[in-house]
Amino acid sequence: MVRWEPGSADRLREAAMELFVERGYEQTTVAEIAQRAGVTARTFFRHYADKREVLFGGSETLERALLGALETAPAAASPMAVVAVALDAAAGPLGRDHAWSRRRQSVVEANAELRERELIKMARLGGALAGGLRRRGVPDPAATLAAEAGIVVFRVAFERWVADPEPAGLGSLMRETLAALQAVTASEHRSADRADRPTAGR
Amino acid sequence: MVRWEPGSADRLREAAMELFVERGYEQTTVAEIAQRAGVTARTFFRHYADKREVLFGGSETLERALLGALETAPAAASPMAVVAVALDAAAGPLGRDHAWSRRRQSVVEANAELRERELIKMARLGGALAGGLRRRGVPDPAATLAAEAGIVVFRVAFERWVADPEPAGLGSLMRETLAALQAVTASEHRSADRADRPTAGR
Repeated sequence: MVRWEPGSADRLREAAMELFVERGYEQTTVAEIAQRAGVTARTFFRHYADKREVLFGGSETLERALLGALETAPAAASPMAVVAVALDAAAGPLGRDHAWSRRRQSVVEANAELRERELIKMARLGGALAGGLRRRGVPDPAATLAAEAGIVVFRVAFERWVADPEPAGLGSLMRETLAALQAVTASEHRSADRADRPTAGR
Repeated sequence: MVRWEPGSADRLREAAMELFVERGYEQTTVAEIAQRAGVTARTFFRHYADKREVLFGGSETLERALLGALETAPAAASPMAVVAVALDAAAGPLGRDHAWSRRRQSVVEANAELRERELIKMARLGGALAGGLRRRGVPDPAATLAAEAGIVVFRVAFERWVADPEPAGLGSLMRETLAALQAVTASEHRSADRADRPTAGR
C-alpha cells in the first residue's frame, strides 16, 4: 500500500467509476474503491469526503470557471452575451474527458439520489450565475432570466454531448444550443401578433 | 371527533400551514395537525399520505392544467406560443390563493428537503411539458428548450408573485416575465454581431 503515491486521486477516481458502472453506485463501498485503486480507505478520505464527491467534486471548478468568465466579459456585453462567455469558459474544463462524462451521466441517471443532487448542483450554478450578473449591474428579473436560460442551454447541450458517442466539441454544442434557444423563444412573437385569438393565451 | 365531516381536508390544510409557519415544518407532527383541525390522525391519512403532501399535493393538478392546455393550443402555434398557453392555464388554479402561496413559499424556503422537493417537482413539470410538445410534433432540442424556458418563466414569475404583498394577477406576471425572457435572450444578437471580438465567446 502506497499512501502518498502521486496519482492516487486519479486512480481512485477511475476505480470508483469502474465500480459504479459495474455494480451500481449504491452497491459500491469506499473500501472496494480503495482496494481496486491499490490504496487504503484512509487515502481515499484524504482525497474525497465520500463516494459521492468522486462524481460531484468537479462542481466547484465548474462554478469558478463560470464566475471567473463573468469578470472577463466586456463591460458593454448584453446579459446573454455574458452568459455565452461563461458557457464557453465552462465548456473548457467540462468538455475535456468525454468518456468520463458519459460514464458519469449513466451512473447519475440510474440513481434517484444522484439525479436530485445534480438538480441541486444546477440550481446552485444558476443562482451563482445570476448573482454574478447582478454584480455586473444587470437588474432583476433580467439577471435571473439570463442566468436560468444559460443553465437550460448548459444542461441541454451537455446532455446532447454525452448522448453522442462521437460529438462535436462541447463549446460549439453550447453555442449551437444557445442559438436554438434564441430561435425557439423568439418564435413566440409570430403568434403574439395574433393577439385576437383567445386560444393563443394572450 | 367527526370523521367524514365535509371540509376536513380544507381544515387539515389550513391547520398544517398554521403549524408549519408557527413551529417550522420539521417540528410539526401529523398528530398535531389533526388535533388542531379537530379530527383524528386517521382522518388526516384519508386525505394526505404525509405532511409533505399538504404542500405538494397540488403538483398533479398543476401538471394536468399544463398538459391539458397543450391540447387546446392551435395546431399552428409555435412551441413558445403553446408554452404561453400552458403557463396561462397553470396561472388559473395556482394564482387563486395568494395568501396560501406566500405562506407555502416561506415554509419551503426555510427547509432544505422541501427546497429539493420543489426542484424535483419543477424538473418533472419541465419533462412533462417537453413530452407534450414532442407529442405535438415539436422536435428536440426545440421541445426541451421551449419547455425548460417555460419552466424558468413559471418559476421566476411565481417567485415575483409570492414576494409581492399585493401583486398583479399571476397570469399577467407570467406573460410579462415571458416577454422579459424573450427580450433578454434576443439581446445576445447585439453582441453576436461583433463576432470578431474574441472575448465575446464566439
